[in-house]
Amino acid sequence: MATDIAEQPGVYGALLEPASVREIERVARAIAERRPKHVVFTARGTSDHAALYAAYLTEIRLGIPAGLASPSAMTVYGARPDFSEALVVGVSQSGGSPDLTEVLKIAREQGALTLAVTNNPKSILNETAELTVDVAAGHERAVAATKTYTAELLALLLLVEAIRGEGQVPAEELAQLAKLPELAEQTLRDETPAQLAGRYRFAGRVVTTGRGYAYPTAREAALKLMETSYLAALAFSGADLLHGPLAMADPDVPVLAVVGSGPGGVAMSDVLTRLGERRADVVTIGSGEVADASARLAVPEVDERYSALLDILPLQRLALHIALSRGENPDAPRGLKKVTETL
Amino acid sequence: MATDIAEQPGVYGALLEPASVREIERVARAIAERRPKHVVFTARGTSDHAALYAAYLTEIRLGIPAGLASPSAMTVYGARPDFSEALVVGVSQSGGSPDLTEVLKIAREQGALTLAVTNNPKSILNETAELTVDVAAGHERAVAATKTYTAELLALLLLVEAIRGEGQVPAEELAQLAKLPELAEQTLRDETPAQLAGRYRFAGRVVTTGRGYAYPTAREAALKLMETSYLAALAFSGADLLHGPLAMADPDVPVLAVVGSGPGGVAMSDVLTRLGERRADVVTIGSGEVADASARLAVPEVDERYSALLDILPLQRLALHIALSRGENPDAPRGLKKVTETL
Repeated sequence: MATDIAEQPGVYGALLEPASVREIERVARAIAERRPKHVVFTARGTSDHAALYAAYLTEIRLGIPAGLASPSAMTVYGARPDFSEALVVGVSQSGGSPDLTEVLKIAREQGALTLAVTNNPKSILNETAELTVDVAAGHERAVAATKTYTAELLALLLLVEAIRGEGQVPAEELAQLAKLPELAEQTLRDETPAQLAGRYRFAGRVVTTGRGYAYPTAREAALKLMETSYLAALAFSGADLLHGPLAMADPDVPVLAVVGSGPGGVAMSDVLTRLGERRADVVTIGSGEVADASARLAVPEVDERYSALLDILPLQRLALHIALSRGENPDAPRGLKKVTETL
Repeated sequence: MATDIAEQPGVYGALLEPASVREIERVARAIAERRPKHVVFTARGTSDHAALYAAYLTEIRLGIPAGLASPSAMTVYGARPDFSEALVVGVSQSGGSPDLTEVLKIAREQGALTLAVTNNPKSILNETAELTVDVAAGHERAVAATKTYTAELLALLLLVEAIRGEGQVPAEELAQLAKLPELAEQTLRDETPAQLAGRYRFAGRVVTTGRGYAYPTAREAALKLMETSYLAALAFSGADLLHGPLAMADPDVPVLAVVGSGPGGVAMSDVLTRLGERRADVVTIGSGEVADASARLAVPEVDERYSALLDILPLQRLALHIALSRGENPDAPRGLKKVTETL
């Protein structure tokens, strides 16, 4: 897992190579030509969080309504929605989950333009979809996904920006993104996650939260903590946290709050105030400065749209180090396999 | 909270009165005429779970793609999606949340047909939307929502079935639903939830799970447990549980599994097997018979489509009794107000 994590700057670099960008632009042009009226993402686990990030991008950057599908409506109950105006996107590391393949198959039969975004160009999901994007993260060793997650984020970001740019990622966008590998290196050099891990050695539960572009990061951090450290990690958007779960917060519940410097970070201030009233122990992640936090995992400041690509890095390392401090093997979590097949 | 819970059979009865059904059918005809190509639900907290149920119904019963919106894309980042082929539905008990009102306002400006489903016909959400449905649950006393949730479920079910029936809820559907108040009475008479509460007196966390129509029930049960008993309650669809969080399960983690007798219940069998391998302590809720469960909250057998209207009842009572056994006041959870305003 440590090796996979360390490879992420290189994965970013490879995806930003002109040849990779051109492949994604080719797919973007095919999508732009079809002008879908809405986009449906379908994914599981870690890839579901990359899909959530892409759904925000789709609505904000493209002005196209986007949402996440519940595969069981189709695979368990036999729903056959009319997808004639839809782009349906399956996101999966392995491309091997039968339920996602079934959703893309049905979507195609029902008139959708279909796209598979995977780390396995030879997968059944790729064969099923009309269009494919290879996130090209290379072989991932650990069961807990790290570099395939961030590769999915970047591939989906490039795809959306290429659609916005009418088939081409704008040069100024690429210039901004060119800094990403170095910023990721810099973020990974920070040893704070290893030092902070001891703080959670005996925690039974943890709450993660963020708004907007930071919400997928909160969700993915919770999943890493569950998979590797067996913590009960509860993820909420900042707004949803106030609609009920806040009652659970007290000084015994550690909170990991992803707070950027942009609109999503600003929208978290009310959430942080309310958590403060409940005397929750808050550690913040990101570029936003927060008063009264117990500790901070600082991340270089970038446009909030890119922050998901950096904020997750110290959280992956935090999960790794909590697992190690508990004597667990983060490479092979109990009860899990690398490829999960659900119907 | 106990009074609100006990009133649910009566709330079902009132919504099934011919005058109420006719009001919903009138809205259904207006929707059917516009033939939306996709449906976007927007909601928070408990109402979000009713919206999730409605999204399943929309895809399965109407064959129209449906999803849940992230309000922050619009309210925080200024997204203006093209909703010209969409029905956008806001679901809210109070109809007073500024972010949902903003989403419906933007959606209407962007060409959507808009609908507010609330328990407050005079709310700002109702004023904002083109169409409105009153779930008519009456004044809810406790902060934790119970009867407004089930009223939303039934109102949304009637709406979907009326759209399917081209403006009219079919007579055979109404005949089935006429049994609902008596079945709810019968379910509420069972004292097992009060007896089971002691089992969780010292639990720090709990996992809830279900698939398809049962997944909203799992989500809503988790929220009730967080709000009233301050348990760390983690809800997963059965499929998502296998994609990572399963690693967290061990004999110390109680699992509440919602298992019906239909396709969603059958699809849970693999999940239950895997939980058994991890020696998790599983209590089942619903009409499905499960081997090796530690205990069972039995609910009368109905079509799985209706099961969400009954399965939640013993779970509401379980949350109430755990709170009481811990000396908490379920009517007024710490840190919460009845109307939560998020931006």
